[in-house]
Amino acid sequence: MAWPDTSIMAQKGVARGRAGAAYSLTEAAQGKYHYVYGPYAAPVLTVDPGAVIACETHDAFEGRIRHETDSPSAILRFPYLNPQNGPIFVNGAAKGDTLAVLIRAIRPRGPQPAGTTVIMPEFGGLVGTGATALLNPPLPERVKKLHVTAEHGTVWNDRITLPYRPFIGTIGTSPEIEAISSLQPDTHGGNMDLPDVAPDAVIYLPVQTEGALLYLGDCHAAQGDGELCGVAIEHPTVTTVQVDLIKGWPIRWPRLETADAIMTIGSARPMEDAARIAYRELVRWMVADFGFEEIDAYMLLTQCGRVRLGNMVDPKYTLGASVAKTILG
Amino acid sequence: MAWPDTSIMAQKGVARGRAGAAYSLTEAAQGKYHYVYGPYAAPVLTVDPGAVIACETHDAFEGRIRHETDSPSAILRFPYLNPQNGPIFVNGAAKGDTLAVLIRAIRPRGPQPAGTTVIMPEFGGLVGTGATALLNPPLPERVKKLHVTAEHGTVWNDRITLPYRPFIGTIGTSPEIEAISSLQPDTHGGNMDLPDVAPDAVIYLPVQTEGALLYLGDCHAAQGDGELCGVAIEHPTVTTVQVDLIKGWPIRWPRLETADAIMTIGSARPMEDAARIAYRELVRWMVADFGFEEIDAYMLLTQCGRVRLGNMVDPKYTLGASVAKTILG
Amino acid sequence: MAWPDTSIMAQKGVARGRAGAAYSLTEAAQGKYHYVYGPYAAPVLTVDPGAVIACETHDAFEGRIRHETDSPSAILRFPYLNPQNGPIFVNGAAKGDTLAVLIRAIRPRGPQPAGTTVIMPEFGGLVGTGATALLNPPLPERVKKLHVTAEHGTVWNDRITLPYRPFIGTIGTSPEIEAISSLQPDTHGGNMDLPDVAPDAVIYLPVQTEGALLYLGDCHAAQGDGELCGVAIEHPTVTTVQVDLIKGWPIRWPRLETADAIMTIGSARPMEDAARIAYRELVRWMVADFGFEEIDAYMLLTQCGRVRLGNMVDPKYTLGASVAKTILG
Amino acid sequence: MAWPDTSIMAQKGVARGRAGAAYSLTEAAQGKYHYVYGPYAAPVLTVDPGAVIACETHDAFEGRIRHETDSPSAILRFPYLNPQNGPIFVNGAAKGDTLAVLIRAIRPRGPQPAGTTVIMPEFGGLVGTGATALLNPPLPERVKKLHVTAEHGTVWNDRITLPYRPFIGTIGTSPEIEAISSLQPDTHGGNMDLPDVAPDAVIYLPVQTEGALLYLGDCHAAQGDGELCGVAIEHPTVTTVQVDLIKGWPIRWPRLETADAIMTIGSARPMEDAARIAYRELVRWMVADFGFEEIDAYMLLTQCGRVRLGNMVDPKYTLGASVAKTILG
Repeated sequence: MAWPDTSIMAQKGVARGRAGAAYSLTEAAQGKYHYVYGPYAAPVLTVDPGAVIACETHDAFEGRIRHETDSPSAILRFPYLNPQNGPIFVNGAAKGDTLAVLIRAIRPRGPQPAGTTVIMPEFGGLVGTGATALLNPPLPERVKKLHVTAEHGTVWNDRITLPYRPFIGTIGTSPEIEAISSLQPDTHGGNMDLPDVAPDAVIYLPVQTEGALLYLGDCHAAQGDGELCGVAIEHPTVTTVQVDLIKGWPIRWPRLETADAIMTIGSARPMEDAARIAYRELVRWMVADFGFEEIDAYMLLTQCGRVRLGNMVDPKYTLGASVAKTILG
Repeated sequence: MAWPDTSIMAQKGVARGRAGAAYSLTEAAQGKYHYVYGPYAAPVLTVDPGAVIACETHDAFEGRIRHETDSPSAILRFPYLNPQNGPIFVNGAAKGDTLAVLIRAIRPRGPQPAGTTVIMPEFGGLVGTGATALLNPPLPERVKKLHVTAEHGTVWNDRITLPYRPFIGTIGTSPEIEAISSLQPDTHGGNMDLPDVAPDAVIYLPVQTEGALLYLGDCHAAQGDGELCGVAIEHPTVTTVQVDLIKGWPIRWPRLETADAIMTIGSARPMEDAARIAYRELVRWMVADFGFEEIDAYMLLTQCGRVRLGNMVDPKYTLGASVAKTILG
Repeated sequence: MAWPDTSIMAQKGVARGRAGAAYSLTEAAQGKYHYVYGPYAAPVLTVDPGAVIACETHDAFEGRIRHETDSPSAILRFPYLNPQNGPIFVNGAAKGDTLAVLIRAIRPRGPQPAGTTVIMPEFGGLVGTGATALLNPPLPERVKKLHVTAEHGTVWNDRITLPYRPFIGTIGTSPEIEAISSLQPDTHGGNMDLPDVAPDAVIYLPVQTEGALLYLGDCHAAQGDGELCGVAIEHPTVTTVQVDLIKGWPIRWPRLETADAIMTIGSARPMEDAARIAYRELVRWMVADFGFEEIDAYMLLTQCGRVRLGNMVDPKYTLGASVAKTILG
Repeated sequence: MAWPDTSIMAQKGVARGRAGAAYSLTEAAQGKYHYVYGPYAAPVLTVDPGAVIACETHDAFEGRIRHETDSPSAILRFPYLNPQNGPIFVNGAAKGDTLAVLIRAIRPRGPQPAGTTVIMPEFGGLVGTGATALLNPPLPERVKKLHVTAEHGTVWNDRITLPYRPFIGTIGTSPEIEAISSLQPDTHGGNMDLPDVAPDAVIYLPVQTEGALLYLGDCHAAQGDGELCGVAIEHPTVTTVQVDLIKGWPIRWPRLETADAIMTIGSARPMEDAARIAYRELVRWMVADFGFEEIDAYMLLTQCGRVRLGNMVDPKYTLGASVAKTILG
C-alpha cells in the first residue's frame, strides 16, 4: 500500500483518494497559457474528483530563453511571465471546500538543454529589486542553459551534477474576485516555489470559487532553500496530478502532507510574517484535527517544529512549517 | 490664477489642465460598485481628457454599518469591501501614458451620522492580523458613528472636534492583467490611504490598459498618519475630479503634486521598502525632470526630504516622499 | 512666559523646570569622547537637577573628514564613530526615574566649512548595507563640505540654501548593563536622528542606572525625514541643555514634548515595529496621564496622530508618533 | 579518524585542531555568571589554543524556575537573564583573528526535572512583544518542567518523548567596545539559538578583542526551527568545548562546519536580512576559499543552498545558510 492511501485526501475526499478518469492537457489542448490566477478565464478542462491529469507545462520563460547569449530583459515581456496550465474546473467544488492534489509524477520534456537559470536585473534575493528599491548598479545579466534528465539530474558543470529533485513551483486555485499574477504566492497557493510540493506529496488548497479552478506550472528540476537568485532550474515537463475534493474541511492557507509529516504554508513579507502564518496554521490544525490544546501545541512546536524556506524572492516570501506525524499520534 | 494652472498636468496634459465636459456618476448611474481594480469590468463612463466627474462614493462599508451596536464581523462579507466607483475609460489613454487627476472637491453626503469608524478583529496597526498572525486574543469589536459636516468637521465627543480634512482613500487605474483587491495599494494606486490625496492636489497614475480605467472611492473625513486602527472617518461623499492625460511621460508608481511640493508614493511591506520605493522614485524624478545629478539628489533629499505615512494597516503599507518646489528651482 | 514653564518637566521635575548651576563641557573638559552608551565609563561631570550644561560637541566623524577629496572609508575607523559628550551624572537619579532634558540652544562652532555630508560604502537608505546584504556594486564614495552658520543656514550650492534647523542626533542615558554603540538607537535613546529633538523641546529619557549617565552628540544643521543617505549636515556645535529629574514617572521609551504636542519615540526594525512601539507608547501615555480609555485613544489617534520618520539608516529605524495638545484637553 | 581532523580548524589552527590542556569551569570556578558579551569583565580562565574546557552551564533562567506553578514574570529580573560562562581569554588571539570552537560534548546535569520551558508575556514568535508592540491581551503564563536525560531525551507527556538533541544556544566572543546583552545575537555570535551548534560541529567566531573572550551558555535539550514560543527545552549542562585559534583568516559573521557541510550564520531583523547576510557570507566564502566565481556561486546556491532557521524570537532573528561539502569539491 502506498502512503497516500492513508492520507487525509483518502480519508476525507469525495473520491476517497482513488484515481478516476485520465486526461492529457497537452500544449495543444491547453492552447493559451495564463499569467494570472483568477475567475475570469474559461476552464480548459472540467473533471470529477479523482481525475488524473497529465499537464504539459512550459518553463517559467515559456521557452523563450534559448541560448546563453540571450538577454532576459530584452526577451521577456512583463507581466507575461510564468505561464500556467488550467484552469481546471472540478465538479462539485464550492467556496469553503478544499481541493486535494496528489502529485504523481514530474518528468522533463522537450529538447536539451532543457534547463534554464538566469540572473535578471532587479530580481533576486541578494540584489536590489523593484520593492527593495536601491540606487546600486545591477549585476550583469547571465543565462545558463543546462542538460536535465530525470535519470542523471542537472549537469551544472564538469564537476557538479545536481540530482533531479523536481517539484511544482506554482500551483493554486482561483481567488474569489481577484486575478493574481502567477508570479505571486498568497492564500490561494500560486508561486510558492516550495520544494516540498513534489512527487508523492498531497497539497491541499482552499476553494474560493465554484469549480475551484486549478492552475499549475513553473516546474523546477532542482532548487535550494529560498530560490536565492530568483530562478531555479526551470524546465518544461509533463506533470501528472490527481485531484480530489474535500467538502466541509475549510482551510485558510495551503497545506501539504507527505508520508511522514504535515505542513502548513504561509506567504508574506517580511519573512517573519510568513513564518508566523505557517506556524499559526499548524497550531490551529493540531488543535482542530489532532486533539492538541492550543498552548501545548505552541510549546511543543517550539521543540520539534521544522521550517522550510520556499522563496525569498517573490512578491511574497513563502515558508512551510511542519511537524512529524509521529508527534501527532 | 490657481496653482493647478502651473501644474505638470497643465504643462503636459492633452487638455492642458483645462476643464472639459462635466459628468455626474450618481449611485444610480454607477449601479454596481467594484471590489477589484482590473480590466475585466465594463466602463461605467467614457470621457475625454479634461472631463470633470462628480462621483457619489460610498463609505468603505457600503453604508452597512449603521449603529454603534452593529457587529462589523457579522455584517461585512470579505472580499466585498471598499466599493469603488468606475471604471472610467479615458479616451486616448494607452499603456505607458500617465493619467492626471486633479481633485476639485470632496463633500459629505447622506444622512447623519455620516461618519463611521470601527475596531474589527485581525485588522489594524496595533493588533495581530491575518499576516502578522498571532495567538493573542483579539480586541473587542467597536463601532463609532460620528456627525460629519464640511463646515464643522467630525464631532468625536463633547470635547473634541476634528476639522474636516477630506481626501480620497482609494484611487487608481487598472493593472494590465491583474484584478487587485480594492483593499490593496500597489503601483496602480489603490488603497493608499494617504491624506495628501486631497482637494487641490493632482495625482498622477500610471496607465497600464487602454482607456486607463480610473476607479476611486473610500473617502475619509479625517485621518491620522498611518490610519492606526485601520479605519479612518469613513463617509459617503460627492467627490469631484478632473482628469487629464499625459502622453510620453511614463511613471512606475503614483506621484502627487501640490502648490508647494512634489511627492512620490510607494506601497510595500516591510515599511522600509515603501520608503525606499518612494524616495528612489523621487530621486529619479529629480534627475529626469529637474536637472539634478543622481548622487546629488540623493544627498540633498537626505537634508530636506519629507515623508508622510499613509497607512500601516493595508496589505501593503503606503508612504509618500516629497520635496519642496523651492528646492527644485 | 515661555512654554517650558508649563511643561511636564516643570510640573513634575525635582527642580520644577528651573535653571540651576551652569557648566561648560568644553573639548578640554570632556577629554576623551565616547563611542558607547554604557555604565562602564567614569562620569565627566556630576550635577544637580536644574543644571545647564553647554557641551562642545564634535561632528559624527570627530572632524576627521576635512576635504571633499577625502575617502571616508580610508579615514574612519569603525567602531570609533559618532563621538559623544558625557557621561553626566545627575544626582538623585535612580533606575525607574525619568530624566528630562530641555534643549536650550545649538550653535555651530569651529572653522568653515563647518558642515559635512558623505556617501559611504554599505551605508544609507537606498543602498545595500551590512544588514541588507547584497551583491550589487556600491555607489562611489563622495564628500561634501558645506558652509554652515546659524544665521544663513547651509549653503548647498549656488542656488540652494537650507535653513539652519539644528537638532541633537544622538542623546540618551546609559543602559543598565549593556554598552550600546553610539550608532544605535534603542529604549535608552541614542542615535535616533529625529529632527524634533531640537531647541525648545524637552526630551524625556528612561533612567536605568544610578545618576542616569547622560550622553549626547552628533548635532545636525539640517536633516530630511529618514536621513536618507545616512549622513545629515554633520557639524560641531555648542549645545546647551538643561536637565531635570522626574521621580516616580517611569517610561519605557524616550518621549518628547513641545509647546504644541507630545511625542513618543520608537526604534526598531522592520520600520513598522518602530511605528508600533511609538504609537503604543502614545496610547499608553494618553491613558495613564490624560484620562483616555485605551480603545478610544487607539481609535482617536487613527484620526489625528502624526508620524515623523527620524532615520531609516541606523541599526534600528526611529520614528516619532505625536498628538496635538489641543486634543489632550 | 574523526571528521574534525580534516576540518578547517585542523588545517589552519595554531594548535592544528589537536586537544591541549583540559580545564573544568565549574559553577564554583565560574563564580559570577555574565549577562552581557563585552570586554569589561575580567577573564575567568586563560588558555592556550587547543584547550579543552568543560563548562558547568546554567539554564537560561539560572535555575530559578523550579515548579510548574511558578510565575516567570514574577521571578525573572530583566536584564539578568541567560547567564553565561566565561569570559575565557585565549592566548595569542587578536582583532582580525578567528576563534574555532569544536563542541565535544553536552550532557545534562543537576536534579530532575532538569528541563524547563515557559510561556512569558510579551515574548515569543506568535505573540505581540516589546518590539512588535500591540494592544492585544497576552497569553497566560505557563511553565512546563520536564524530565531530561541524554539517554532517553525529553519526556513531553505520556505519549511524546523528544530525542536528546542538545546544542549551545548562546556562544560568542566579545565585541570590541560594546557590551551586548546575552539575549541578543549579532556578528559576535551570542544568542543565536541555532540547533546546528551541536556536538561534533566546529563554530568559527570573529575575534574583536585581545584574547577573544569566549562566552557560552544557554544549552537546549531539544529545539524546533525558530524556537517558536521563545523558550526551548532549557537545561543545565556540562558542555565541553575545544578551542583553537586561526590567524590571518578574518570573518565578519559566525561560521559553522560539520562533517558534511559548511554554514554561515546571519542575525538581523527583518528575517530576510538574516537570510541575506547568511547567503552573502556563504557566497563570499565559496569565492575566497573554494575557487568559485561570485555570480556562479550565487546561481549555484539558488539550486542547492540549505537554510536553517535558528530563532524567530530574539532581538535579532538568526538563520544559517549551508552548502554540502560535496558541492565544494
